[in-house]
Amino acid sequence: MSKVRFGLIGIGNMGKGHTNYFAKNEVAGGELTAIVDTNPERLEWVRQQYGDRFQLFDNLDSFFASQAFDAVLICTPHYDHPDLAIAAFEHGYHVLVEKPAGVYTKKVREMNEAAARSGKAFGIMYNQRTNPLYQKLRDLVSSGELGEIRRTNWIITNWYRSQSYYDSGGWRATWAGEGGGVLLNQDPHQLDLWQWTIGMMPKRVRAFCHFGKYRNIEVEDDVTAYVEYENGATGLFVTTTGEAPGTNRFEVSGDRGKIVIEDGKLTFWRLRVPESEFNRDFKGGFGAPECWKCEIPVGSSEGSQHKGITQNFVDHILHGTPLLAPGEEGIKGLTLSNAMHLSTWTDNWVDLPIDEDLYYEKLQERIRNSSYKKETRKLDHMDVSGTH
Amino acid sequence: MSKVRFGLIGIGNMGKGHTNYFAKNEVAGGELTAIVDTNPERLEWVRQQYGDRFQLFDNLDSFFASQAFDAVLICTPHYDHPDLAIAAFEHGYHVLVEKPAGVYTKKVREMNEAAARSGKAFGIMYNQRTNPLYQKLRDLVSSGELGEIRRTNWIITNWYRSQSYYDSGGWRATWAGEGGGVLLNQDPHQLDLWQWTIGMMPKRVRAFCHFGKYRNIEVEDDVTAYVEYENGATGLFVTTTGEAPGTNRFEVSGDRGKIVIEDGKLTFWRLRVPESEFNRDFKGGFGAPECWKCEIPVGSSEGSQHKGITQNFVDHILHGTPLLAPGEEGIKGLTLSNAMHLSTWTDNWVDLPIDEDLYYEKLQERIRNSSYKKETRKLDHMDVSGTH
Repeated sequence: MSKVRFGLIGIGNMGKGHTNYFAKNEVAGGELTAIVDTNPERLEWVRQQYGDRFQLFDNLDSFFASQAFDAVLICTPHYDHPDLAIAAFEHGYHVLVEKPAGVYTKKVREMNEAAARSGKAFGIMYNQRTNPLYQKLRDLVSSGELGEIRRTNWIITNWYRSQSYYDSGGWRATWAGEGGGVLLNQDPHQLDLWQWTIGMMPKRVRAFCHFGKYRNIEVEDDVTAYVEYENGATGLFVTTTGEAPGTNRFEVSGDRGKIVIEDGKLTFWRLRVPESEFNRDFKGGFGAPECWKCEIPVGSSEGSQHKGITQNFVDHILHGTPLLAPGEEGIKGLTLSNAMHLSTWTDNWVDLPIDEDLYYEKLQERIRNSSYKKETRKLDHMDVSGTH
Repeated sequence: MSKVRFGLIGIGNMGKGHTNYFAKNEVAGGELTAIVDTNPERLEWVRQQYGDRFQLFDNLDSFFASQAFDAVLICTPHYDHPDLAIAAFEHGYHVLVEKPAGVYTKKVREMNEAAARSGKAFGIMYNQRTNPLYQKLRDLVSSGELGEIRRTNWIITNWYRSQSYYDSGGWRATWAGEGGGVLLNQDPHQLDLWQWTIGMMPKRVRAFCHFGKYRNIEVEDDVTAYVEYENGATGLFVTTTGEAPGTNRFEVSGDRGKIVIEDGKLTFWRLRVPESEFNRDFKGGFGAPECWKCEIPVGSSEGSQHKGITQNFVDHILHGTPLLAPGEEGIKGLTLSNAMHLSTWTDNWVDLPIDEDLYYEKLQERIRNSSYKKETRKLDHMDVSGTH
């Protein structure tokens, strides 16, 4: 194989973005050949923009049957990601899926199992994994520079969304339409990076979600989550769409110091000797390890982002390059988000892995009572501006 | 009365600090006339330093009977604060007590009641209330500049203490000796400022204390506390003595923006129109209120600190100046700290006001099992360097 041909599912906002860089031939070894959408207006938009450059389909059956591509790129609303990925694997296609992996882990696990059975390449569009800031943090942790992790603290409250944003689509911020709020729609990248950068998932979660606190919506728009890791470290994740201007500050402390990512900068307060060593040897009353404030060089760009993930996915298929964002890892961030909901609903701790059946059951209750009717959902509401 | 004469109880580290500025006549209208301590070596130290300038007592009975002063300044270990204050009130003295107000609120409430019965002046040494940073924050909140509070978040993890610090005194970090760890010994100022600056106490607390996590001690050395306020705001308080270099960052967000105190600076991100107003009027998809980063002038000093509190206490007695830190308010910070312990011990929510009897009972269990024997405590262990 010298080229990976893509079939794109769902030409909403994200789908248009992907189509755009493919149309400019910006993915080496990758080509977009087909697009499917059930909305004729959106297909017409593609035709007007790109003429007959892409094969267009108005239904999934003929799309999947066409074999006009080697891989699918799934850009539909959240709920459909796993079903479409499973169908694609069953038709023998590679799969690159937009985030989040899905809405509940029970279903995402089925997707992961289908991926494993298929032997096909499986990636997820965690474009923030290409961001040099988070790559550097992961580097400093995995190389041991920061030492054993003691605390993580991510304040990510700069996802401001007005009521008019929520009112722009009936499915928005509903249990039936999106399956969650800020955790599902705004935070998937941070929930992924929170565990990817440090290489650890929590062992248990105690979270405090507030539903429709700042906006007239069904789902959570304000969350504080406390977690504990296997090694004794603790963590916090604080997020909302209701504050302005909000904050994006990720602090990680370890045995050898502290790293803070804020304002697009990474700063490493590095201890000259590890804290545990200082503590072992120090005999005085007041005293602390010598600490150096280090400016760590980090690329000034935001990284290659979506296009970079697609390129990496192509390189993986063509050349065996390791995936930067394996699709199977999508379940991790979603597990955190599901656990935060569940901890709030049960007003109690949630141990990981979560009770997927219990989560599914409690989510279904909410879907049944949702203001949005799920039947009308499939593939027909992707044309608003902005899918995050 | 043209002068307030002070009798100081306990000439440990804090007592020496107070004696020092009194000896230099730095409190207008205030004079230190007497000192009591049960340890002869410490009284000898005073004699060597200051000759016969102060009347010295080696027992509380003759001290209280002497009437050689108008007010007492209590600088003993935590547990003794309320008992000594109550005795002083009963002898007709004004009382200025070091922080914390005590170890458990049940007892501190008795102290407050004794103060009320006595009609005497009652102050607490919350010297950080003189810090211009926190005064400015309180000003911006109380004047309405920040709008209704939505979230507080204090990361105060720069209280590094080594094992050798804890080993420097047998009572240190024991339930019987100090009644708590980082919350009782290092954080009383922050626990006070957390509620004093915003003018609100939480209505309930869910906290996660870890006891002896980083050090070989009985009490908490790592705490994450989540709180909810009556108006719907949420808050976080994160503290430890086990991290280096740690962080001291206090963020408060409100309807009109966000204030952050960090690195000795206060920054106000001010919204041009309140968020609630923007949200009401905005009709677009993505969009947020215009935000101005404002540099707020704040005095560069740390304020008048301990001496300032003593001066204010004197001015209150002589001239009716309002107290900056009324003694009765000491119970507030202590309530937060007791609630954090109790929430951890019960692994559950704690509503405020807390169940003081339950807290007392659970503390007594720990005191009974403490490695430190309480009988040996009273007034005889104040000579280490550093009482925080």
